[in-house]
Amino acid sequence: MKSVRVAVVGYGVVGKRVADAVALQPDMELAGVVDVIPNDLVRTANTRGYPIYAGTQDAVTSFQAAGIPTAGAAPELMENIDIAVDCAPPGITGKNIALYKEHGVRHIVQGGEKHSLTGISFSALANYREAWGRDSVRVVSCNTTSQCRTLSTLERAFGLDDVFIAITRRAVDPPNVKGGPVNAVIATLPGFSHHAPDIQTVIPGIKVRSMAVVAPSTLMHVHTLRATLRNSADADSVRKLFAETPRFRLVSGQTGTTSTAHIIEWARDASRPRNDHWEVAVWEDSIVVEDGVLHLLMAVHMESVIVPENIDCIRSMCELEDKASDSIYRTDQSLGIARAESEYQKFNSAVN
Amino acid sequence: MKSVRVAVVGYGVVGKRVADAVALQPDMELAGVVDVIPNDLVRTANTRGYPIYAGTQDAVTSFQAAGIPTAGAAPELMENIDIAVDCAPPGITGKNIALYKEHGVRHIVQGGEKHSLTGISFSALANYREAWGRDSVRVVSCNTTSQCRTLSTLERAFGLDDVFIAITRRAVDPPNVKGGPVNAVIATLPGFSHHAPDIQTVIPGIKVRSMAVVAPSTLMHVHTLRATLRNSADADSVRKLFAETPRFRLVSGQTGTTSTAHIIEWARDASRPRNDHWEVAVWEDSIVVEDGVLHLLMAVHMESVIVPENIDCIRSMCELEDKASDSIYRTDQSLGIARAESEYQKFNSAVN
Amino acid sequence: MKSVRVAVVGYGVVGKRVADAVALQPDMELAGVVDVIPNDLVRTANTRGYPIYAGTQDAVTSFQAAGIPTAGAAPELMENIDIAVDCAPPGITGKNIALYKEHGVRHIVQGGEKHSLTGISFSALANYREAWGRDSVRVVSCNTTSQCRTLSTLERAFGLDDVFIAITRRAVDPPNVKGGPVNAVIATLPGFSHHAPDIQTVIPGIKVRSMAVVAPSTLMHVHTLRATLRNSADADSVRKLFAETPRFRLVSGQTGTTSTAHIIEWARDASRPRNDHWEVAVWEDSIVVEDGVLHLLMAVHMESVIVPENIDCIRSMCELEDKASDSIYRTDQSLGIARAESEYQKFNSAVN
Amino acid sequence: MKSVRVAVVGYGVVGKRVADAVALQPDMELAGVVDVIPNDLVRTANTRGYPIYAGTQDAVTSFQAAGIPTAGAAPELMENIDIAVDCAPPGITGKNIALYKEHGVRHIVQGGEKHSLTGISFSALANYREAWGRDSVRVVSCNTTSQCRTLSTLERAFGLDDVFIAITRRAVDPPNVKGGPVNAVIATLPGFSHHAPDIQTVIPGIKVRSMAVVAPSTLMHVHTLRATLRNSADADSVRKLFAETPRFRLVSGQTGTTSTAHIIEWARDASRPRNDHWEVAVWEDSIVVEDGVLHLLMAVHMESVIVPENIDCIRSMCELEDKASDSIYRTDQSLGIARAESEYQKFNSAVN
Repeated sequence: MKSVRVAVVGYGVVGKRVADAVALQPDMELAGVVDVIPNDLVRTANTRGYPIYAGTQDAVTSFQAAGIPTAGAAPELMENIDIAVDCAPPGITGKNIALYKEHGVRHIVQGGEKHSLTGISFSALANYREAWGRDSVRVVSCNTTSQCRTLSTLERAFGLDDVFIAITRRAVDPPNVKGGPVNAVIATLPGFSHHAPDIQTVIPGIKVRSMAVVAPSTLMHVHTLRATLRNSADADSVRKLFAETPRFRLVSGQTGTTSTAHIIEWARDASRPRNDHWEVAVWEDSIVVEDGVLHLLMAVHMESVIVPENIDCIRSMCELEDKASDSIYRTDQSLGIARAESEYQKFNSAVN
Repeated sequence: MKSVRVAVVGYGVVGKRVADAVALQPDMELAGVVDVIPNDLVRTANTRGYPIYAGTQDAVTSFQAAGIPTAGAAPELMENIDIAVDCAPPGITGKNIALYKEHGVRHIVQGGEKHSLTGISFSALANYREAWGRDSVRVVSCNTTSQCRTLSTLERAFGLDDVFIAITRRAVDPPNVKGGPVNAVIATLPGFSHHAPDIQTVIPGIKVRSMAVVAPSTLMHVHTLRATLRNSADADSVRKLFAETPRFRLVSGQTGTTSTAHIIEWARDASRPRNDHWEVAVWEDSIVVEDGVLHLLMAVHMESVIVPENIDCIRSMCELEDKASDSIYRTDQSLGIARAESEYQKFNSAVN
Repeated sequence: MKSVRVAVVGYGVVGKRVADAVALQPDMELAGVVDVIPNDLVRTANTRGYPIYAGTQDAVTSFQAAGIPTAGAAPELMENIDIAVDCAPPGITGKNIALYKEHGVRHIVQGGEKHSLTGISFSALANYREAWGRDSVRVVSCNTTSQCRTLSTLERAFGLDDVFIAITRRAVDPPNVKGGPVNAVIATLPGFSHHAPDIQTVIPGIKVRSMAVVAPSTLMHVHTLRATLRNSADADSVRKLFAETPRFRLVSGQTGTTSTAHIIEWARDASRPRNDHWEVAVWEDSIVVEDGVLHLLMAVHMESVIVPENIDCIRSMCELEDKASDSIYRTDQSLGIARAESEYQKFNSAVN
Repeated sequence: MKSVRVAVVGYGVVGKRVADAVALQPDMELAGVVDVIPNDLVRTANTRGYPIYAGTQDAVTSFQAAGIPTAGAAPELMENIDIAVDCAPPGITGKNIALYKEHGVRHIVQGGEKHSLTGISFSALANYREAWGRDSVRVVSCNTTSQCRTLSTLERAFGLDDVFIAITRRAVDPPNVKGGPVNAVIATLPGFSHHAPDIQTVIPGIKVRSMAVVAPSTLMHVHTLRATLRNSADADSVRKLFAETPRFRLVSGQTGTTSTAHIIEWARDASRPRNDHWEVAVWEDSIVVEDGVLHLLMAVHMESVIVPENIDCIRSMCELEDKASDSIYRTDQSLGIARAESEYQKFNSAVN
């Protein structure tokens, strides 16, 4: 089997998860993770046996001083890999790209970066083949990923006209104790939020608008979705659609899951690593279809929802799997969330 | 001038505010406030010089023991008033109504009660005249009040077709330290929330749907509104409409008001009693009109938004002011939020 | 090897964790878990392959209706076990005890129950041998457990005089979205909190006082400890003591762990099931010893800190391991937190 | 009556409150407030009729552009005042001091600045006379102010030996929506917190230590105080002491005030401007004296507790009132919190 060597650059909220997922793939090898500060988090990379590269030669010294052994500095790693997944914080990625280009390394950037940086934005269920063989691709952000999944799935099944999304965003990720708000709801201004245009970088044809507020919670984003369906559907058929589509999980208030806390608690109980919830959670008892308009509530685990998409993007860019179905299935298998293989076939018909 | 004697039954979040507002009206007299537990809050009623009536004869004794003088028990008060504004917690109002009927006392109940309890639901800007001379009327809840104001105003100005509201509710009022959630977002299930049907108890003809989530905040509800307008409008004309309609206040992220916390801080800085914000706050920089569809974000101060509506409802039920415009103007004057008198004329054309 | 059959009664925050821990012990068999409501949580017990018993015969039917297979009703399970670990909510345990007694079953109750219910309160590092062969023992609550560990350890090493603990409690556990406070700090009144007397049920001789407030957080309790040491010590010797004592973990702000969120994030990164943190976390850079008085900050994961203590309590009650050191070591091994075996010897000298 | 002209530099959380308080004093004139950004908050200064000066000549232009009239730039104001109260954010005050010195203007800085900046730290109940006639004085921060009041009062009444304070700090002020934590408790590291040494800048002789954590709340700080009293006292005598000392307010869980939210709600109900609570709130049912050691819980409104101290500091620096008692009484009268005049006499005996 062909196998590619992958570097993860930036070992933070996204990077540590992508590294774990890469390490699980039989057709990938985690060549190393790169970071610049020898903190408690990077120490856990060492515990997991990941080769650690310091961002610079200076950082190598500070890692040594902190008792964290490194395999060298980032430029050395670049010489020895097929692709880099950049998970650095905003502002740093731009500089990293110079490094990737200098070493002729394929690279993925995350959704915090602009579409124009790569010209291609990726979401596995929607446009797997678009990243095929490309050198530089952006995997869209958590909210956009969840909507690309949802809207491409609805589009395939029923056709979509007008879509409106009202997002109640979580404030910060759990380990970020410096950001707020503590007790307020913040309006995302002015006008529409950036989420809808961002969806259109993956699914250009779609008519979608979004508005957003930020709530003082650290667990998940919640989306209120209102979508006009082109073809006839009822709540049951929508429920069935999501029940039979990988990377979705139906939850229900009727069996006790009334909040984002319950979803995360389920992930804890299900022995998910880091209580990650890679699937979009759709409240099945929220679904209403009325006069051809679908309404539903869904929750998005911002820390992990983009992880499988990064893996599929590697496969497409490195030409490891021809078909979307095969890549997505393999990724889901590695994470323990695979469904019947037949459910994956639908992803081979591109949306756009 | 005709003057009516008003009792406020239940001295809590709503009751204490309605009592203050009644005390400000030249055509009303606060005959007394009724409560059953002699806590720190009731003590403040005494400080304000309001006659306090204990709910029962037993309660009179416990008030005395706590050093809070009473003017007697609730039944005595009932003999001596024109109208009772019931602000008791859910479950108690039902019992109180028997008392009102026994004493032949007009009464208002709050929006936590069912429409069927009174058969008439009231919101001043939308249907002032419907309560005219009636014995028993319900003033709708905070979220419903804010939408009755907003939608009746939009309907008058532009006509409305389809309306969709996504609500991010505050968790609890500030002094309620027992309720949650602390760090989760709760989905209101199943399906649509009760807010839209509740709006229809005031504006029956309107096509409106709503969904809701609850966020861990104590300050204000935030609504994302999407409304199809029948007549042509643009963002500026909508902004102008709300700028010229009483009981709305335009806020803007561009001058620093990006959150519910900023709105409440403004109310503190504006010397509002209890930092109350009786107006619906509309973010002017959130307004987008596109293809005849209006989108905006608005915030609702759940503790106070219904206060002026209770005052106007008293006037309509007790036949103190013929015209909606006159009552609403007088109420606004008493609260210090009156606008040009001409702006009030539009309220005389009923919506429904 | 002798093996005992264990039932866990009440599959909630504590019960699900104790069940997992029992299932890990070679000298124990998880005979079944008991609950009364067929919710999403109980479904995860089924996924884990635990035999589920419905609390009553009626509940058997409702479990079947919900598609959760049961092995029978609780009374059948009682016939077939050596010991029950009761993890039912307050109010229910009392009723369950009648069942245990009727079937002659040894039982553990949790720290929410009164000491007088069993007459023996247990914390493994402090008084392992006191539960030896007993029929009914109480494992103390999370805050008390953490202090019994800490104070018995300090007493052995340095001797203790006066102890004062100021506790900033977490509000509710993460999946409890109904409790508050949302944005307030609650004072635990009147006077001293119950924690100090509760510690004395395990370590009777100690002079300790405690006060507590509740903060709007779901992660961990934080204790500020001030203890007068009888023998000379400095910050380094205290640090060394906790570094060498099982069931403690030193954390440090200097390497980025400045909050309870960072500790829980570490547990996520360390692949802890449910991000559990069975050890008391002591901030090593908080430790100050001045004029013989020790000060430090420590954090307590309320959901999991009592889990190992329940396992050790089973061993003592069922006479599976003579020595505290052997039981505690075995438990720690099963959880993956064992230290050098020599560190456990100190637990064989009882404190009280 | 002698009257001094006062400028308030920095119109934020502290500045706006100090400005209001200055405007209330018959022996002071609010000559102007200075700020640099023409936001919604500064607009409220205009509404209140305060002369607004822009920080620089450039800022004058941007204020004009925003429709906020100014009386000129800061340097002009400096020519025309007796004293400046600097309430600028950390980092700016240092620069402002050059301005004050250039214009020979007396100035007060706030507790976020270092003691060494002025050499004199002030808290009215503790050391009123130390600021007498001085040019540059620091009013200590909210937590320090509250403890200077408390400890100087206890010292006078009973004598103090060892004092230990465990602080549960609020996260951010209400309108600060950018700071956290959202759902964590942060440890203040390393070792002791700065609060105790800061108290010693005002009361040098005292033996006090403090530790602190930060909780996700916006309302008030809560202190757990443990103090060894030199002279015999019991809970009742301590209660009586605080009941008879100005700038304290006893609250009680028994009448429903169990949290910081209840205290702020009381301030709302008591028609306090901005729900300010200038007094230290002491929970009377938290007070325990045992073996000569006092324990209690108290809450501190961080936004307002330092306001009266700023006013008294102006009087001492500008030699407006010889006696602490007279200044403190006048300030309290102006705020509507004055007590019997005799209670103020105790403040004339300096602590240190």
